[in-house]
Amino acid sequence: MRNLRDHLSQRAVGVKQSAVRDVFDIAMDPNLVSLAGGNPWLADLPLDELGRIASDLMTRFGTESLQYGPGQGAEEMRAAATAVMAADGIPDADPDLVVITPGSQAAIDTACRAFANPGDVVVVEDPTFVGALTTFTTWQLEAVATGTDDHGLVPAALDETLTRLAAEGRRVAFLYTIPSFANPSGALLPPGRRAEVGAICEKHGVLIVEDNPYGQIAFDGEPVAPIAADHRDNVVHLGTMSKIFSPGVRIGWALVPAALKREFYLCAESAYIHASTYSQMLSTAFVTQLDWQGHVRHVTGLYRERAAALVDAVREHWDPGVEFITPQGGFFLWATLPTGVDTLEVMHRGIEAGAVFVPGAAFTPVEGTHSTLRLAYSFVDAEKLVEGVRRLAPAVNESIARAR
Amino acid sequence: MRNLRDHLSQRAVGVKQSAVRDVFDIAMDPNLVSLAGGNPWLADLPLDELGRIASDLMTRFGTESLQYGPGQGAEEMRAAATAVMAADGIPDADPDLVVITPGSQAAIDTACRAFANPGDVVVVEDPTFVGALTTFTTWQLEAVATGTDDHGLVPAALDETLTRLAAEGRRVAFLYTIPSFANPSGALLPPGRRAEVGAICEKHGVLIVEDNPYGQIAFDGEPVAPIAADHRDNVVHLGTMSKIFSPGVRIGWALVPAALKREFYLCAESAYIHASTYSQMLSTAFVTQLDWQGHVRHVTGLYRERAAALVDAVREHWDPGVEFITPQGGFFLWATLPTGVDTLEVMHRGIEAGAVFVPGAAFTPVEGTHSTLRLAYSFVDAEKLVEGVRRLAPAVNESIARAR
Repeated sequence: MRNLRDHLSQRAVGVKQSAVRDVFDIAMDPNLVSLAGGNPWLADLPLDELGRIASDLMTRFGTESLQYGPGQGAEEMRAAATAVMAADGIPDADPDLVVITPGSQAAIDTACRAFANPGDVVVVEDPTFVGALTTFTTWQLEAVATGTDDHGLVPAALDETLTRLAAEGRRVAFLYTIPSFANPSGALLPPGRRAEVGAICEKHGVLIVEDNPYGQIAFDGEPVAPIAADHRDNVVHLGTMSKIFSPGVRIGWALVPAALKREFYLCAESAYIHASTYSQMLSTAFVTQLDWQGHVRHVTGLYRERAAALVDAVREHWDPGVEFITPQGGFFLWATLPTGVDTLEVMHRGIEAGAVFVPGAAFTPVEGTHSTLRLAYSFVDAEKLVEGVRRLAPAVNESIARAR
Repeated sequence: MRNLRDHLSQRAVGVKQSAVRDVFDIAMDPNLVSLAGGNPWLADLPLDELGRIASDLMTRFGTESLQYGPGQGAEEMRAAATAVMAADGIPDADPDLVVITPGSQAAIDTACRAFANPGDVVVVEDPTFVGALTTFTTWQLEAVATGTDDHGLVPAALDETLTRLAAEGRRVAFLYTIPSFANPSGALLPPGRRAEVGAICEKHGVLIVEDNPYGQIAFDGEPVAPIAADHRDNVVHLGTMSKIFSPGVRIGWALVPAALKREFYLCAESAYIHASTYSQMLSTAFVTQLDWQGHVRHVTGLYRERAAALVDAVREHWDPGVEFITPQGGFFLWATLPTGVDTLEVMHRGIEAGAVFVPGAAFTPVEGTHSTLRLAYSFVDAEKLVEGVRRLAPAVNESIARAR
């Protein structure tokens, strides 16, 4: 008898549920304290004003907001994206070089389609965004980790990695990096390293895909200028409405070097025609009609308080052998337990104790057991964060005791 | 000096602006009568009621409608999709086997990701949907045309094509077909042929991707049951809100055989996480709170009148050497001019005369000049349709005279 699963492509046979999404399903259990999902806090959005805007988009502009639009994205939305990027530290982005995508995951996917051949290498931070790793798998790319420390990419290590890959004759499709408050590490790449990374990639002729969802969630209020600010012709810079407004509208974008724009947007169009017109108009209104920067300041303050509460709780309740990067922005605290601890096992014990996080194995292309874990503080209030850390403490501390 | 365009993938170098989108740009010129774009008619939607719903989705449900949701699509949206499919002629679709996508273009793209390896064949009708052809190109697939007539796929020709491809040792990823009121041909595959096509593909072990955007736009009011109704385990059935409600919300779906669902939805998730939560809730409300089938009946009546006016005008103003398929539903009239006519040339002359259509070359994987063209009647009122046909008449008729 024919096996229906013979219909699957080679890449589909290898595709895995991301551990984050697995945990996301578990995390829906209302009895669990979830430190797993990186959901933004939405309850303080100006929902009444958004309601009036949403209604207007139907009653006054419905024949436009519900209709097909341009493949590259609406002109107004592309202008709104440049306003967001100006606040990120790219003051002069050209709307004509912006391609609107249905979320920035789709922009990462489009970068693979436009720039990578099967078998190519994508150089990544280790740890890196799990969603990007899954996309790289489906495009049959090899994610190669390059060295990082508490401040993100280590330039010398990157130079070495690119030199080695060139010597091996590998085609490097691009470097994928999240320089500001990275998911999952929270690391912030300092300005000096950004200049070095930009120069090293130019020297090696390697394109950079710079993913910047968290740049404005800076606890000291000052975003560090993206790599794209000074290396426009060698960087595809990705932005999104997900963390400053809403992930549910699924609106992201890419600022693309002029020489590559046409193919990038045709690749995007081939995948989904264009992002939701209605979502684009809603996002445009958020940026042009509302005090969006006031909202970002407000939620950033909230995230800062939550991060501080989480850090205190970890210090109080967890073994001092737990090292972590103190968040300066973004949504995540990244912790490293002593070598020998398997945080996947800790996660299972933690779920029994009533709290859940994402184990580090999800965020690395390197196989094997990992002693790292990610705690998300964006969507949980301080009291619950503390309770989550307390519930996890026995699992964490006993696993460390056993590993010693 | 380094050439930035070396960064492009092999597939991206080959990607072309679809002729439809090129013409779409031209068609924005308000002085032109556009018979090019297949936009649905939206002005008769219940926009006031939709405005109230849209407002509610913000003020009452904003923290949910603007938040991340499940990768497979919201449960309520998947149930709404099964209600639409019931009206299409699939009475018992299981919501658990539905994957919501940001438009059905994204579902076609996901089918390629999930089922096709580079170098595989996709068997297509000739002519077929231009957006699908572009997607196949970016996945490095070869679109192989199989014979059609005025009633769509010719079963014997399909059997022959699949036999030949098997003899050549080619892997056929799937048959891509639009059985009801196809884009661009308008052809309606009769029930008997549907049974034959289903059986032939089962015999050859070839999966079917059945795209059904127009099934309910049936001028006699009776949709013909999709192939998926009787061949559930061998058909990935695609549906969409685009033609019955709104293309701007970008909501489509795939009904997937149980054995292939998990990989299909993980492939979808890797490309864009999930479709807009807000768009899903809006589409769900359209199906559950409004008289959506009344709206479909109303616009179908409008399309029927417009198609009739277009047919009359073509008969009156164009050379009798123009053959066409009389539309029984859908958005398009497909015309074939005598051999030797190049409709790309006719298009350019037509634009000078103030009207535009899409030349047949856009819709076929076969290179060369083509004497076919597509007229869209969905978005233009009867008077303007007639005016468009009149403006095009000299270009059409003189090209035929020259070809004789």
